Amino acid sequence: MTLWSGRFRAGLDSLASILNNSLPVDKRLYPEDIRGSQAWAQALAAAGVLTADEAGSLVDGLQAVFEEMESGSFEFHDNDEDIHTAVERRLTELVGPVGGKLHTGRSRNDQVATDFRLWLLSTSKKLDAAIANLQKALIHRAEIDLEVILPGYTHFQQAQPILLSHWWMSHFWALQRDRDRLQDLTRRAAVLPLGSAALAGTTFPIDRFALSKDLGFNLPSQNSLDATSDRDFAAEFLFWASLTGVHLSRMAEALILYSTIEYGFVTMADEYSTGSSLMPQKKNPDMLELTRGKAGTLIGLLTGLLTTLKGLPSAYDKDLQEDKTAVFEAADTMEVLLPVVEGVISTLTVNTDRCRQAIHPAVLATDLADYLVARGVPFRSAHEAVGKAVRLAEETGKNLTTLTLNEYQSIHPDFTEDLFNSLNPESSVNRRSVYGGTAKQAVEKQIEEAKQVLH
Amino acid sequence: MTLWSGRFRAGLDSLASILNNSLPVDKRLYPEDIRGSQAWAQALAAAGVLTADEAGSLVDGLQAVFEEMESGSFEFHDNDEDIHTAVERRLTELVGPVGGKLHTGRSRNDQVATDFRLWLLSTSKKLDAAIANLQKALIHRAEIDLEVILPGYTHFQQAQPILLSHWWMSHFWALQRDRDRLQDLTRRAAVLPLGSAALAGTTFPIDRFALSKDLGFNLPSQNSLDATSDRDFAAEFLFWASLTGVHLSRMAEALILYSTIEYGFVTMADEYSTGSSLMPQKKNPDMLELTRGKAGTLIGLLTGLLTTLKGLPSAYDKDLQEDKTAVFEAADTMEVLLPVVEGVISTLTVNTDRCRQAIHPAVLATDLADYLVARGVPFRSAHEAVGKAVRLAEETGKNLTTLTLNEYQSIHPDFTEDLFNSLNPESSVNRRSVYGGTAKQAVEKQIEEAKQVLH
Amino acid sequence: MTLWSGRFRAGLDSLASILNNSLPVDKRLYPEDIRGSQAWAQALAAAGVLTADEAGSLVDGLQAVFEEMESGSFEFHDNDEDIHTAVERRLTELVGPVGGKLHTGRSRNDQVATDFRLWLLSTSKKLDAAIANLQKALIHRAEIDLEVILPGYTHFQQAQPILLSHWWMSHFWALQRDRDRLQDLTRRAAVLPLGSAALAGTTFPIDRFALSKDLGFNLPSQNSLDATSDRDFAAEFLFWASLTGVHLSRMAEALILYSTIEYGFVTMADEYSTGSSLMPQKKNPDMLELTRGKAGTLIGLLTGLLTTLKGLPSAYDKDLQEDKTAVFEAADTMEVLLPVVEGVISTLTVNTDRCRQAIHPAVLATDLADYLVARGVPFRSAHEAVGKAVRLAEETGKNLTTLTLNEYQSIHPDFTEDLFNSLNPESSVNRRSVYGGTAKQAVEKQIEEAKQVLH
Amino acid sequence: MTLWSGRFRAGLDSLASILNNSLPVDKRLYPEDIRGSQAWAQALAAAGVLTADEAGSLVDGLQAVFEEMESGSFEFHDNDEDIHTAVERRLTELVGPVGGKLHTGRSRNDQVATDFRLWLLSTSKKLDAAIANLQKALIHRAEIDLEVILPGYTHFQQAQPILLSHWWMSHFWALQRDRDRLQDLTRRAAVLPLGSAALAGTTFPIDRFALSKDLGFNLPSQNSLDATSDRDFAAEFLFWASLTGVHLSRMAEALILYSTIEYGFVTMADEYSTGSSLMPQKKNPDMLELTRGKAGTLIGLLTGLLTTLKGLPSAYDKDLQEDKTAVFEAADTMEVLLPVVEGVISTLTVNTDRCRQAIHPAVLATDLADYLVARGVPFRSAHEAVGKAVRLAEETGKNLTTLTLNEYQSIHPDFTEDLFNSLNPESSVNRRSVYGGTAKQAVEKQIEEAKQVLH
Repeated sequence: MTLWSGRFRAGLDSLASILNNSLPVDKRLYPEDIRGSQAWAQALAAAGVLTADEAGSLVDGLQAVFEEMESGSFEFHDNDEDIHTAVERRLTELVGPVGGKLHTGRSRNDQVATDFRLWLLSTSKKLDAAIANLQKALIHRAEIDLEVILPGYTHFQQAQPILLSHWWMSHFWALQRDRDRLQDLTRRAAVLPLGSAALAGTTFPIDRFALSKDLGFNLPSQNSLDATSDRDFAAEFLFWASLTGVHLSRMAEALILYSTIEYGFVTMADEYSTGSSLMPQKKNPDMLELTRGKAGTLIGLLTGLLTTLKGLPSAYDKDLQEDKTAVFEAADTMEVLLPVVEGVISTLTVNTDRCRQAIHPAVLATDLADYLVARGVPFRSAHEAVGKAVRLAEETGKNLTTLTLNEYQSIHPDFTEDLFNSLNPESSVNRRSVYGGTAKQAVEKQIEEAKQVLH
Repeated sequence: MTLWSGRFRAGLDSLASILNNSLPVDKRLYPEDIRGSQAWAQALAAAGVLTADEAGSLVDGLQAVFEEMESGSFEFHDNDEDIHTAVERRLTELVGPVGGKLHTGRSRNDQVATDFRLWLLSTSKKLDAAIANLQKALIHRAEIDLEVILPGYTHFQQAQPILLSHWWMSHFWALQRDRDRLQDLTRRAAVLPLGSAALAGTTFPIDRFALSKDLGFNLPSQNSLDATSDRDFAAEFLFWASLTGVHLSRMAEALILYSTIEYGFVTMADEYSTGSSLMPQKKNPDMLELTRGKAGTLIGLLTGLLTTLKGLPSAYDKDLQEDKTAVFEAADTMEVLLPVVEGVISTLTVNTDRCRQAIHPAVLATDLADYLVARGVPFRSAHEAVGKAVRLAEETGKNLTTLTLNEYQSIHPDFTEDLFNSLNPESSVNRRSVYGGTAKQAVEKQIEEAKQVLH
Repeated sequence: MTLWSGRFRAGLDSLASILNNSLPVDKRLYPEDIRGSQAWAQALAAAGVLTADEAGSLVDGLQAVFEEMESGSFEFHDNDEDIHTAVERRLTELVGPVGGKLHTGRSRNDQVATDFRLWLLSTSKKLDAAIANLQKALIHRAEIDLEVILPGYTHFQQAQPILLSHWWMSHFWALQRDRDRLQDLTRRAAVLPLGSAALAGTTFPIDRFALSKDLGFNLPSQNSLDATSDRDFAAEFLFWASLTGVHLSRMAEALILYSTIEYGFVTMADEYSTGSSLMPQKKNPDMLELTRGKAGTLIGLLTGLLTTLKGLPSAYDKDLQEDKTAVFEAADTMEVLLPVVEGVISTLTVNTDRCRQAIHPAVLATDLADYLVARGVPFRSAHEAVGKAVRLAEETGKNLTTLTLNEYQSIHPDFTEDLFNSLNPESSVNRRSVYGGTAKQAVEKQIEEAKQVLH
Repeated sequence: MTLWSGRFRAGLDSLASILNNSLPVDKRLYPEDIRGSQAWAQALAAAGVLTADEAGSLVDGLQAVFEEMESGSFEFHDNDEDIHTAVERRLTELVGPVGGKLHTGRSRNDQVATDFRLWLLSTSKKLDAAIANLQKALIHRAEIDLEVILPGYTHFQQAQPILLSHWWMSHFWALQRDRDRLQDLTRRAAVLPLGSAALAGTTFPIDRFALSKDLGFNLPSQNSLDATSDRDFAAEFLFWASLTGVHLSRMAEALILYSTIEYGFVTMADEYSTGSSLMPQKKNPDMLELTRGKAGTLIGLLTGLLTTLKGLPSAYDKDLQEDKTAVFEAADTMEVLLPVVEGVISTLTVNTDRCRQAIHPAVLATDLADYLVARGVPFRSAHEAVGKAVRLAEETGKNLTTLTLNEYQSIHPDFTEDLFNSLNPESSVNRRSVYGGTAKQAVEKQIEEAKQVLH
């Protein structure tokens, strides 16, 4: 059975049927499909289109279908071209001809849009919680690594010393923006399409505001044409996943480096490392590499859907069937990635001494320039002078702490003995006590704010 | 002059200099750069780092630079590798050594992030207004085309009759979501990076909350590492532009079709049409085709930036320089596209008769099924019966209005003479009076709601 | 068992294991994996690393594994993290400790690259044949539709009359370029990585030229680092699939339009059409819409892989695991799309009369300009004159065939009575007899050339 | 003047005109446009459509236009909507009414496709030479760095020692595939569209084979519809640029790492480094970071064009105007990137001692496993045993060279004193003498092959 064979003389070609069949992808929507259909049956009854008995039979029958699905006893047929067809077919087997009344005034166009949005709303809640868990892990790291000083980098090059806690927290805020975006998109997604029928609105006097409330949406959609073809929420979800993926990838990239022999700042737990089939010594950060790689795939999913949407005229077109494959893949990816990254972070070991020892004296150059600024030298001249000191150090095989006072004074007369006091990573860190800075006190305050944001 | 030559023995290779130089792209940021620097000078004074006189000289000097820029008398030098360098260089020429104090405690990393966000905030306002203008044009069309009935399509195939006003309004709501997204992203973008210095926070006691307020931001950033390397706002802007572009493209695609000889629903104004160098009769909807094509380009800009961001470790890297080219191109595109589409819509002629005549009787099939439903036939059986009628009509060279009652009754006994009353486009439309439906009354209500949303 | 647990104290976390496990994706590579391992065992024997008996046991054992896979009796274990592990694990169960010698001097890095290339080479052959079948269908259509004249379009607007055969053939040549690209990429893919080990080359004296020949490659790779991390072939395959998808999408888009009531040029077979759950009359071109939609998805797959590759440093990284998901999905898509589009084309009905009647007289405007050119009028002036005639016709409710000679002469004195002879679609078509043109004779020649290209 | 105003009553709206005007982008095509027009004038004469005098006037007039363009004296007008219009307008000013005969039997559709292909063919030659120069620089480095041993990496983790020369050469071969692809695409692009007119072929008896030869193409296009709307060559070029960009990005990423303090393998020349406006010590690898970032942008350009192409029906549409912006930007990017990367590589200093010292003894683990294999231990067991040795070393604060023989024998009885001989980076490298391996002799052979490929 298909739902539409009346006007056709011949059935679908077998390969065409494979292309057309969306069941392997959309069968996971059965809870939403059934819940939506139950609400629809009741709405039809409330509108006087069905009797209470008819609606009751449908609701009960749908519940029976749901239980078959849950228990795994549901048998799909070859002609079940999608989950909607499968559910209606089985419903009619169970409850008889009244099953044929369920689809009154409804189209798969508004039905699938409703199912998909319901699914997105519940999935987004799970993903939001998964991000929050990862954020908690970052806060926890920030708290226990508060004494760890390491080089901060720009352009991959040592720049200024920072607290490791500050570094962990930098990722917290990026994820907070991701949660913010997720919240915005779910707000926009919480609009009910049902009642829009195929494109022009249902002909029955459905109270769409009540239906919307019943299904947990904020409001019914304002335009039936738009409602049946709008997939903004899917695109927005994929953008959310892509940008969250980018954030995870950037953190992963840095941690991959920090776990090399050359950096040695962190050691991954065995539980999140893998080996080589050939090289016995290998311990690879595969989880972080996959995190990085998946971010590329997520961007591809976004691009794919946007490209498909762009090619459409207004109103529903079958091309939209591609939406679910992409969104489901992105959601499934995030449901694994987020806790795995949380696990990686929570279980790694920080090598405090390696972090501290890695700091090259040259990263204190800005502090040395500030030293001159405090003596009234315009910053631009101070910068120039310290730049020359760095160059002199390089040329003489020294560094900023081993240049002599004479050498410093040959560059700029305002250098005096106390310049060497400024060449200390700890004080360099703690001088950056501005709001948002890396000083310990500022980071502690930052952690407090983060906890309040999360609570 | 570069801002950083102290430690270098040799200057940049000439081709490397071309690759490195961002001035052609970022020089448009001069108003934001100067405004940000003036605020910075005053913040340094408030923090006791500069004297009031020094700050005054800097503010005045920057104003003079601004005026040179505005008047076009500013002369760029070969070594002005970006707008920040150009402004500081000229400032120092104008005010002398005190110019070298402006960059105290600041880095181009927090400076450029601040400039770029300032620009984005003001540009977004302009773009929001441009969308609103387009929405007004849609509402206006919806009001004047309220009597126009035409076929509604799904799968590009005639589906059910609708009001043209309903079609116009479907695009209104998509654009409303775009505005909603734009508002969300500007809220997230309104966070001040300045004071984050290169990565670790400034060492001077700047009141970043006051500075944030002074420059029109909501709040200062919470983490200096994140603040200097975060480009979420740029990615979000490009996603916004891509999805808005998709919406314009979908409307354009439909209008291109509707303006063909085959559809003939609308006629484009000459002011928005072009001809052919070879074919004298041609009148092409180039504006709408370019709208459609630009949507592809916008998606490419988004993909490009996401790909670049994904490849970064945490903290600032030079790759980020690619952000502005993409965002500026997207913004410039939208600043032209939105009013041009508005112009197209406002000036086209609707061919009311062609619209009405195009409606094939078969699009009333759903109404005929509803007719049976009203007689107690389960919808699924009614659908089957009408499907057979459609097929019979095709096979006999008839249509749903010319099949005889006998023929109808041979398919289903519940058909009676009054079935033909249901076969009327106007009543088909008006039966869809549910909230969000295409009935005239429902569309009028929709227009009212839209006006309130817009006001 | 994993292949690498020696140095590890703890096993993988369960979620990490899910992320890490590539078996669901790569298990389809078992034929290539086993074939490659058999060749490797023999190469080790030829190099004196294994005895002939050992190699024989391995080859036979691998054959037994292959047969278990083919028959479906192979049992996968939880620790089989990929197809390579599964095969080696089962081999060792079957042949005992000698199984542990198979991986001598080899890494999964060169092994998987070899498997994947082998798979690509055989899959590409199948896809090439599928394109060729589609091309044959196009030629067949071109032959049977040789008398069908219809409007040719540019900008979606009627431009000049053409033969439908010419239109069919335009798609033939696009697909021919796709085949050309497929051939180029398979040539580049036919390079053997095996013997490169993890990154630096195997330490055993393998004759890689003989091994390459044995496995059907053209040559061994020239650099072991490059060989283990090069995925150009995967990216090139995805680009091929994307561009072929674009070609199918463009053809689909046009056919979707041509099958509307408004155009009516073709009627899809029921075997390639589907209906609506709500609207009984609907007959939708879902196969072509899915073709169009899949093209978007294919572009996304390409973007995703390029983005992932871009984020890598040189040499093998685990991110590369994403390559197979993308390539397999693209190949599976093309294996269905190509024959389905072939089916659509082969079974549709062309409505010859509708095509001919659709031609608006204005499309003969170029012929009318040519008429003036033949009388010595410079083309630019002729274009101008005919443009005015078109405008006059529009303003007077006429068309180019119903304007009077007087009216024509009021526009340009060189118009005489015989101008009306030029206003004939058939002669318009046949005047375009240049090589590559739409004249019947030229199209017949084109078909001949196409057949030779295909043979 | 536009070329098509005859049938229009009103001119273009001013903003629409901005959107429509492609002159800022396509004016660089004037050499190709003029060359193509000269050839067309002669072809018209050869076909008897123009007299020899007329053709002569046109050719001379076009030459005069060319010279104005070259000298910069050409004055563009507001109505010059593209380069074709500008050239024809100026030609007619110079030669009078005969200028109006140039466009006889031609359309901008075939004209622009011809211009663009001509440009692509000559640009590709330049880019091919630029890649070859970069390859020469790589060979040169490979020759002078032949004694440098450093750690080879997989998963960013030390894997096995390799020669730096081998690493340089790995990039050579990736670029060689890029050149191969460039050659394939130029072969496919060398097909002449001219004579296809707007879509259906020209009506004049042009010898397209002669014209093709005259303009340096291989053959005329076989189908006029396809020829005017085919942009495969543009997409292929962007794919080529994207993949070449990926290759440059991967090399850049590694070199950025190798130039950090932590790795210290190479030192960038000052000529290819930049500093910081704030941090006086900074020396940043901006050129390589921009290389990496541009690769993202290139992928975006490819995605954008594919998305636009995917949205088209067959035949020419105005959306195609987006093609040139993308292709020109990609070409311009590559014209700068390739020589800059060549400069970076040629001028950097290799720190031989740092490279050698960075090798951790654990990277010899595979050699130690091979040692056991040579004693008859199955590889899988040998791998397990050495894995345990690595773990023991880690747990006891030793490494593979400082574990005692007793400790080794406690793990596997086949270890004897001579195991320590295998623990030597130089011999590890030289044991990989297989074709394509990292042994010095193999690399020397590789370099020889590379030179032959390049010659």
